[in-house]
Amino acid sequence: MDDQTTSRAGDAADVDVSGALRRIQQLTLHLDANESADPAQRIVPRLCGGGRGRRLPAVNTAELLEYTKGRHREIQERIFDFFASRPDLQPPVEISTSDHRELCMRQLSALVREAGIRPLRYAFEDPSVYFAIMEAAGGIDISLGVKLGVQYSLWGGSVINLGTKRHKEKYFDGIDSIDYPGCFAMTELHHGSNVQALQTTATFDPLSDEFVIDTPNDGAIKWWIGNAAVHGKFASVFARLILPFQGKGGKPADMGIHAFIVPIRDMKTHEPLPGIEIHDCGHKIGLNGVDNGALLFRSVRIPRENLLNRFGDVSRDGKYSSSLPTINKRFAATLGELVGGRVGIANSSVGVLKVVVTIAVRYSLIRQQFGPPKQPEVSILDYQSQQHKLMPMLASAYAFHFATLYLIEKYSEMKKSHDDEVVGDVHALSAGLKAYITSYTAKSISVCRESCGGHGYAAVNRFGVLRNDHDIFQTFEGDNTVLLQQVAGDLLKQYKSKFQGGTFTVTWNYLRESMSSYLSQLNPVTARWEGSEHLRDPNFQLDAFRYRTSHLLQSVVLRLRKHTKTLGGFGAWNRCLNHLLTLAESHIESVILARFIEAVQKCPEKNTREVLKLVCDLYALDRIWNDIGTYRNVDYVAPNKAKAIHKLVEYLSFQVRGVARELVDAFDLPEIVVRAPIGMASEAYSHYTEYVGF
Amino acid sequence: MDDQTTSRAGDAADVDVSGALRRIQQLTLHLDANESADPAQRIVPRLCGGGRGRRLPAVNTAELLEYTKGRHREIQERIFDFFASRPDLQPPVEISTSDHRELCMRQLSALVREAGIRPLRYAFEDPSVYFAIMEAAGGIDISLGVKLGVQYSLWGGSVINLGTKRHKEKYFDGIDSIDYPGCFAMTELHHGSNVQALQTTATFDPLSDEFVIDTPNDGAIKWWIGNAAVHGKFASVFARLILPFQGKGGKPADMGIHAFIVPIRDMKTHEPLPGIEIHDCGHKIGLNGVDNGALLFRSVRIPRENLLNRFGDVSRDGKYSSSLPTINKRFAATLGELVGGRVGIANSSVGVLKVVVTIAVRYSLIRQQFGPPKQPEVSILDYQSQQHKLMPMLASAYAFHFATLYLIEKYSEMKKSHDDEVVGDVHALSAGLKAYITSYTAKSISVCRESCGGHGYAAVNRFGVLRNDHDIFQTFEGDNTVLLQQVAGDLLKQYKSKFQGGTFTVTWNYLRESMSSYLSQLNPVTARWEGSEHLRDPNFQLDAFRYRTSHLLQSVVLRLRKHTKTLGGFGAWNRCLNHLLTLAESHIESVILARFIEAVQKCPEKNTREVLKLVCDLYALDRIWNDIGTYRNVDYVAPNKAKAIHKLVEYLSFQVRGVARELVDAFDLPEIVVRAPIGMASEAYSHYTEYVGF
Repeated sequence: MDDQTTSRAGDAADVDVSGALRRIQQLTLHLDANESADPAQRIVPRLCGGGRGRRLPAVNTAELLEYTKGRHREIQERIFDFFASRPDLQPPVEISTSDHRELCMRQLSALVREAGIRPLRYAFEDPSVYFAIMEAAGGIDISLGVKLGVQYSLWGGSVINLGTKRHKEKYFDGIDSIDYPGCFAMTELHHGSNVQALQTTATFDPLSDEFVIDTPNDGAIKWWIGNAAVHGKFASVFARLILPFQGKGGKPADMGIHAFIVPIRDMKTHEPLPGIEIHDCGHKIGLNGVDNGALLFRSVRIPRENLLNRFGDVSRDGKYSSSLPTINKRFAATLGELVGGRVGIANSSVGVLKVVVTIAVRYSLIRQQFGPPKQPEVSILDYQSQQHKLMPMLASAYAFHFATLYLIEKYSEMKKSHDDEVVGDVHALSAGLKAYITSYTAKSISVCRESCGGHGYAAVNRFGVLRNDHDIFQTFEGDNTVLLQQVAGDLLKQYKSKFQGGTFTVTWNYLRESMSSYLSQLNPVTARWEGSEHLRDPNFQLDAFRYRTSHLLQSVVLRLRKHTKTLGGFGAWNRCLNHLLTLAESHIESVILARFIEAVQKCPEKNTREVLKLVCDLYALDRIWNDIGTYRNVDYVAPNKAKAIHKLVEYLSFQVRGVARELVDAFDLPEIVVRAPIGMASEAYSHYTEYVGF
Repeated sequence: MDDQTTSRAGDAADVDVSGALRRIQQLTLHLDANESADPAQRIVPRLCGGGRGRRLPAVNTAELLEYTKGRHREIQERIFDFFASRPDLQPPVEISTSDHRELCMRQLSALVREAGIRPLRYAFEDPSVYFAIMEAAGGIDISLGVKLGVQYSLWGGSVINLGTKRHKEKYFDGIDSIDYPGCFAMTELHHGSNVQALQTTATFDPLSDEFVIDTPNDGAIKWWIGNAAVHGKFASVFARLILPFQGKGGKPADMGIHAFIVPIRDMKTHEPLPGIEIHDCGHKIGLNGVDNGALLFRSVRIPRENLLNRFGDVSRDGKYSSSLPTINKRFAATLGELVGGRVGIANSSVGVLKVVVTIAVRYSLIRQQFGPPKQPEVSILDYQSQQHKLMPMLASAYAFHFATLYLIEKYSEMKKSHDDEVVGDVHALSAGLKAYITSYTAKSISVCRESCGGHGYAAVNRFGVLRNDHDIFQTFEGDNTVLLQQVAGDLLKQYKSKFQGGTFTVTWNYLRESMSSYLSQLNPVTARWEGSEHLRDPNFQLDAFRYRTSHLLQSVVLRLRKHTKTLGGFGAWNRCLNHLLTLAESHIESVILARFIEAVQKCPEKNTREVLKLVCDLYALDRIWNDIGTYRNVDYVAPNKAKAIHKLVEYLSFQVRGVARELVDAFDLPEIVVRAPIGMASEAYSHYTEYVGF
């Protein structure tokens, strides 16, 4: 490298990389005192990353926006406009936990009482409106979205879904108007995922016709209870229902987990009620606008009618009745009613992903660093590495957008029809999408921060607060690792049902075909096909995704069977756990791709369809490339094809970069949601220097 | 699943997974109203994940600790003891930016003036002590470690390394005692990575014998300057040195980037000096104990002797002189002196990784959730998925520990010998390890948080602050994506040098062999070997790592040659950028593995050696499995071998789990560094409830 000209002398082993080496001179200057940069030897380069000359699809942003925008944009805009007009309700860049809690409560009250948004009715009558409200509120401040969710989905949802007419009559208006701010007291210090193992008890006292709520040990303290530390007046407390004398030999009978309305603070003085010890769970990584507390109960007495008795009731004389025959069925019915929370989280997570992608893409377009010799520096989005970081992510935001639209649609259908098949479908789909999307978004926020370098580290540019707030989306309302196991479990159930002549629910329907056909025939000819037309054929893409799922399912069934013999059910499941999680993710990816392909095909406008097809191809092929080891191991893809896929992913990322600005503009995020100076649609640097005081 | 017994009826297509399905009943209870869990059908399982009956190595924690502890543990303990005795200097769980800045300054002053730790001399005379101090200070609060680095490595380092005797005499004591708190003003709003494009100017005025410092436009405002917003009195300002009349035709000559000492605040009043506009960069994602500011200069005059003139000087009559012939050589020499910062960051990043792994492993041991029927719940570290998340990470912490020890050793050697070969080696190695380790740690912190569920989200349990503070390690002192390109560039240079009869520097020496041998012979027989003895043979592991690097290097050379013809050097480099980054990472992984294997082999005590060998095998095979697609694509590994590697990684993770407690104990982190209640060696839950007020 010291002398470019000698390197071209006829040594056969030598290679002519001198041009490229010039590029690294700029970089190695930072570390190397021995190089020589001779400007006279510089070559004028062509468009970086380009050179294939294929045209980019023309984007009609208005059409794209029209096709992708949600059905309830109007109510969202009302929310955005309301907060835009109220600077006193906008969260500052730095805020203490106590101030944030008060601000968040004021935001929620103003939204309900001043802007006139009343979410509770929507949550039951038109969930898609409810989720749109939640997403928009979360766009202002994720804490607000969650505080709203605690009040309406969790506290309100438990009262309305698990209670009966008497509860609705008594509580609906107070919850809706936030006169009755409430909590959802399920999680305990020792038990989060394993809800069946909760230890709080509610013992019926036939003398006084009351339940007595008790925390039997420190591990049973209700923990992480939103709204409990400061604002809550009520809680729906999940506890084991104990009936004295109803068990064998006159012992107490444990009827399993039930929910009870427990007033926790005095309506007037706001002091904790007798027997209730409340502590503040304190500062959290994020979401500090929500006041999480810990609740300990010492013989707290509530009237019998405070039992939320839709799935099980206790009569005046202490007898239990239920339409459902077993503890497990009642437990499942109880928790099943709460699945809406996951739908909301998945949907809001996509909203967060859109925000960070918008900031990172816009900044990467205006940020310039390095460049060809004697030419202006280039936009950092022109670097292949930056495209690699951001373009598949942009494609995923679109993919998830269509997937959550579908989920909300299915959920709304379920709330109307209560059809068993739809119920099963929505439960597994919401678990899978919540887990997959929130994990992906969490990782992406970090990638976006890093891709924006130092300026990405300024709090005002939002990556920190979004990462910190969103982080817990992976854990609450079902830990992602546990939720994916539910998806895997559901797949195994469906698999088994198929061989007993049963039917697949809608989402798994593809497995009907794939189990019988894909696995029987690995085609050594198509495994070598590498043409771009073939690789961009949705049939190939879907086949590849589904083949993988079928293969993983088939093989895990064999492994489970083998290990169950020696390790028992629990041990076998655990021995195959990584396999099962991969299976669940693979299935969810298939479902997302299928929705995306459908959305592309249904798009009425040609240009828009073409752009979406490009984005969809990138989503599909990037996923295949990420898991190329799996495909190679079973020879579904030959080495030449693997190489072609890799090349095409890089090419598609380059193509999507060409329309990246339009693609993020079509997310149509208002300034009050993006907020980051470096993420503004124009004049980003000026916004930023102005913020710092210049 | 509705009825386990019918599933065993003689349908050939049916499979017996009923035992495993029982496991999912517990999970699906959360979503499925249609199951029936019949406790009578439960099977007693064996030790989950176990069943192979091989013995675990016995750990002698004291021996392990003795072998792994740093050489300068004593001075670190002095620092820990000092802060343990001073609760007023310990950072609280929540703190505002302005309070944090003051606390951090008080911490640093107390460390220097009360505890008597004087880092500056060590930085030059015995760097390994300096890095030990920095790591320990960062253990108390990462902000403190960075504030210390700004004062001593950056401000102090620039004065001592880039200046001459006169600067040392005038500034050494003031810097060491922090009477002269200072800044390192390199980065500008528009330029971070591309330092050569900085725009601030320092124009010599021969009339007054002064330099005039100017910010020519907003893009040239010095940005992110640590110590500038509040505490700094001086800055070493990097600016283009302009000499009037010395260019062609009597025009001004631009001599390139030089550093100048610029007083920025009045020594008595602490007011900004005339012509200097200072703004606060404001709240950041993390590291808010460090006060980053923005500096704008308007004709600020400094005496000529404030030029840090080791590599270039200006005489009274405005003539330039230097021992180095070109701008680029001077620039490289200037930046080359600052490489110590990267060594410190890599080292401190390993410290952070050890903390989060310790917290996550200890909590995963005491946390129990779910379990076999009618048996106690199991520790969540007994789940394969949790082992998958945490055990390779624990292995990596050990791998990085040995790699950074080696880096510090090499760096110390370089500071003594100034040997050219060692210089080149340290520059590339520090760039590569800094990039690789900080990226890995950043991802790992998020995985640890998630693996600790809700309790991982409590701020007191530390994942949030560590993630937020550490985040910028990926960006400052060299963006990781840029640093990896430097490594790739260095590899290409070495490659070329080899074919010109040159030699590889120490770190790359393995390529000498691998280029000529590995690539010529892919052995279809060994590609199928799958025995555990073979897979755990360090020769196989190293060969695999090195083969990959050689293969990536060979192929990128061909691609660069091809693309340079049509795209020019810049375009070709960019077209191969992802490939080059993969190459750099692959090389760094090889270097880390080689160091680890050496550390295992040198370990004198048999039990400890055996434990370290286990950990090293997991590190090596996990990395191979993660990149199995690459190995499969070139048929270095046959499908049966790929499967065997995967199986062995899961088995080794299970084995390491058996000694995980001892492995984290051997990190020997004092309570004042771990701090998280859930990360305490005992009584974690009590620490936690006590914190919340119970």
